[in-house]
Amino acid sequence: MNAFYSASPSQSWPGLWSHPQAHDLDYNRLDYWVNLARICEDGLIDGIFLADILAVHDVYQGSSDATLKSGCFCPTNDPMLLIPAMAAVTDHLTFGVTGNTTFEPPYLLARRLSTLDHLTEGRLAWNVVTGTAASAARALGRTDLPPHDERYDIADEFMEVVYKLWETSWDSDAAVRDKDSHIFADPSKVRPVRHAGRYFQCEGIHLSEPSPQRTPFIFSAGASGRGMRFAGRHAESAFISANSIPYARHLTDSLRGQAEACGRNGQDLKVFNAVTVIVAETDALAQEIMAETGRYSSADGNLAFLSGITGIDLSRYAPDEPIRHVESQAIQSIVEQMTRNSEGRVYTVADLAKFGPLRGPELFFCGSARTVCDQIETFVAQTGIDGLNLVRTVEPAGIRSFCDLVVPELQNRGLFKTAYRPGTMRQKMFPGRTPGVLASHPAAQV
Amino acid sequence: MNAFYSASPSQSWPGLWSHPQAHDLDYNRLDYWVNLARICEDGLIDGIFLADILAVHDVYQGSSDATLKSGCFCPTNDPMLLIPAMAAVTDHLTFGVTGNTTFEPPYLLARRLSTLDHLTEGRLAWNVVTGTAASAARALGRTDLPPHDERYDIADEFMEVVYKLWETSWDSDAAVRDKDSHIFADPSKVRPVRHAGRYFQCEGIHLSEPSPQRTPFIFSAGASGRGMRFAGRHAESAFISANSIPYARHLTDSLRGQAEACGRNGQDLKVFNAVTVIVAETDALAQEIMAETGRYSSADGNLAFLSGITGIDLSRYAPDEPIRHVESQAIQSIVEQMTRNSEGRVYTVADLAKFGPLRGPELFFCGSARTVCDQIETFVAQTGIDGLNLVRTVEPAGIRSFCDLVVPELQNRGLFKTAYRPGTMRQKMFPGRTPGVLASHPAAQV
Repeated sequence: MNAFYSASPSQSWPGLWSHPQAHDLDYNRLDYWVNLARICEDGLIDGIFLADILAVHDVYQGSSDATLKSGCFCPTNDPMLLIPAMAAVTDHLTFGVTGNTTFEPPYLLARRLSTLDHLTEGRLAWNVVTGTAASAARALGRTDLPPHDERYDIADEFMEVVYKLWETSWDSDAAVRDKDSHIFADPSKVRPVRHAGRYFQCEGIHLSEPSPQRTPFIFSAGASGRGMRFAGRHAESAFISANSIPYARHLTDSLRGQAEACGRNGQDLKVFNAVTVIVAETDALAQEIMAETGRYSSADGNLAFLSGITGIDLSRYAPDEPIRHVESQAIQSIVEQMTRNSEGRVYTVADLAKFGPLRGPELFFCGSARTVCDQIETFVAQTGIDGLNLVRTVEPAGIRSFCDLVVPELQNRGLFKTAYRPGTMRQKMFPGRTPGVLASHPAAQV
Repeated sequence: MNAFYSASPSQSWPGLWSHPQAHDLDYNRLDYWVNLARICEDGLIDGIFLADILAVHDVYQGSSDATLKSGCFCPTNDPMLLIPAMAAVTDHLTFGVTGNTTFEPPYLLARRLSTLDHLTEGRLAWNVVTGTAASAARALGRTDLPPHDERYDIADEFMEVVYKLWETSWDSDAAVRDKDSHIFADPSKVRPVRHAGRYFQCEGIHLSEPSPQRTPFIFSAGASGRGMRFAGRHAESAFISANSIPYARHLTDSLRGQAEACGRNGQDLKVFNAVTVIVAETDALAQEIMAETGRYSSADGNLAFLSGITGIDLSRYAPDEPIRHVESQAIQSIVEQMTRNSEGRVYTVADLAKFGPLRGPELFFCGSARTVCDQIETFVAQTGIDGLNLVRTVEPAGIRSFCDLVVPELQNRGLFKTAYRPGTMRQKMFPGRTPGVLASHPAAQV
């Protein structure tokens, strides 16, 4: 069970920062994050997963106005910098952080992630993304994004470089750290990486000594054909955002199949589905909270968000017009679900603008703990997924109510741990294994 | 008074991590940094200044062997990631962090620094560097560094881009954060930066809303002719490393002159000189500690360090041969002092390999609190500098003895504050001013 945030005032549900109980305007203060981390660890949440975006969404109405007004993933501070303060007040909570492979040299990102894996004592995951916004490319000095599939070719080579840095530059016994002999590292066990590829050149010793996991636990959220191939090859955990059992089943099976096609065990890829949860003492109260929360949700913000992540300008549709499928550079699984829903539903702009289960391409559970747990239990059993990504609503009230109400009910059903597992993030996800990657993972093969 | 560290086991004094009292092998753990930050704040130290290097020094003996063995600035984790955890346990301590302008897009570094300025509530300084090691260039996908002066041309344009992002993209009243109207930001007060220059292109809205200082307090350590011009234009604080009063006076006067040549007040540039301090209850005890500390200092590490920062392979000299002046891509002020000492001393390799005041191009004070304070008082009075950068030795014992012994003696003499000043880093350095840059600073003129 992950809690899903970004270093923004609001995220997938723009506007909820304006709720009277929301502390989300403090997204730029350390105490907001330290407090969230403590709540999550008290509630045995596995990890905090931090999304990121390198642009201000500007597809909706061809401008960033709705994005700025609603605080939709905007501003977005650097999420990596939240982790050290949260790690300092927790022992087991893990941290997944988004990092982009399209715009910066692998050598620097590799060091940043190694540093975090050291500072968290092996509680780090990296969510590998390739970028979906043309505006990010322009901010970063390009005229446009590379084409969708080429972004994944670039990412594949980026992974090769960082795997070499993490796995081959320092032998495990290179850093002897011996005070008696005054030897920090044995030079015969340290060597420069020499990579000269199509997209990247890198010749140098990795700047960090081996961290607890060496290669951080790898996340991926790609759900296009090429994105799934990438996830099948690299991801130890994949994030999907399916709003129906059949589609979640389809994505999960496809991801595991892609892993198997790469010579890996399909079960070595853990699948998490995004879900928004509104829980309260009773079903009726949860419905009331949902309706009340909706008053602070921004309709334009929702459309700006969905336009941004799909590349479809939803302002060009009439309110009751069904959304048509388009090819775009952006997140195809969301486009699929907005336009080709497996349960026959056709979404309109009016649906997509609303807070609640009708918005579309995400799962939404609302009710008492018992109701929510029934929904979770059914969804997990029938889709084969491994866990959920809890979408931020009004915080920290949202995550606290989940920890207070849903976690104990899941524990009563034997569906949730009663204590954290020891070890690194990889070991918490795959108990009994070593801190490092499996031999079948490409990081072990560079 | 700044404490000078890097995210490494040792730094300017390689090998001291092997001292029995040293905790510096914990450089990769959060508790080492959290503890240091608390000691510094208890001792009213102004700031922690974090050096950085994007390469493993490999000039000495044409290899990185001595660097790896002695743990000299190697490994070097990402220093930015130490700051959030230290900021979370302090209220006034400031943080200066090194960031390089040669290898990554301005848009990303600008966001990282804005995020830190938010999280520290305005306690951030950025030490602008352009890189001196050819090995860093090769690790980052280049065949070599750009020529020395061109690196500063690139840096000048980099500064122009980040100033535009920090100072012009969001008006001060753009982020209204109004829960009643549900408006996070007023789009009419936010605009994209549009920069198309020789080295950088950037078109986009800054991802962070205005932080307490907007532009973080700017440090620079350039001491070549071109580096001083850069510091005169941009730096609000300059770091020098002079081992004599005449040379410190010369550098300080030159820096202030450069600032004046840029239309600024020379006193708006604070100058800090690096100094290693060994202090104890008596002069004799301090001398004993210095000798004992020297047993853990690495001779080869010292030469690898000085070779790395000067670009001169000191292994090519006989132990008693005077060091000749050479032109190199690296730090000219250090080369100058190793080869053209203003007090007539000529250094040999044997000198430079030693722990203590003979090593050469840095200041070294050793003695009782009274002796050290006499040395500080004389140096400050006769050079016109504003403060000192305390070079890491055996930590945290080194900084603790400074706080316990030297700070009270300086306070007794009326030379040191008895409480922190309020406000942002810029306001602590220049009391009575606003949090932002002066109108005469180039950040205010973009």
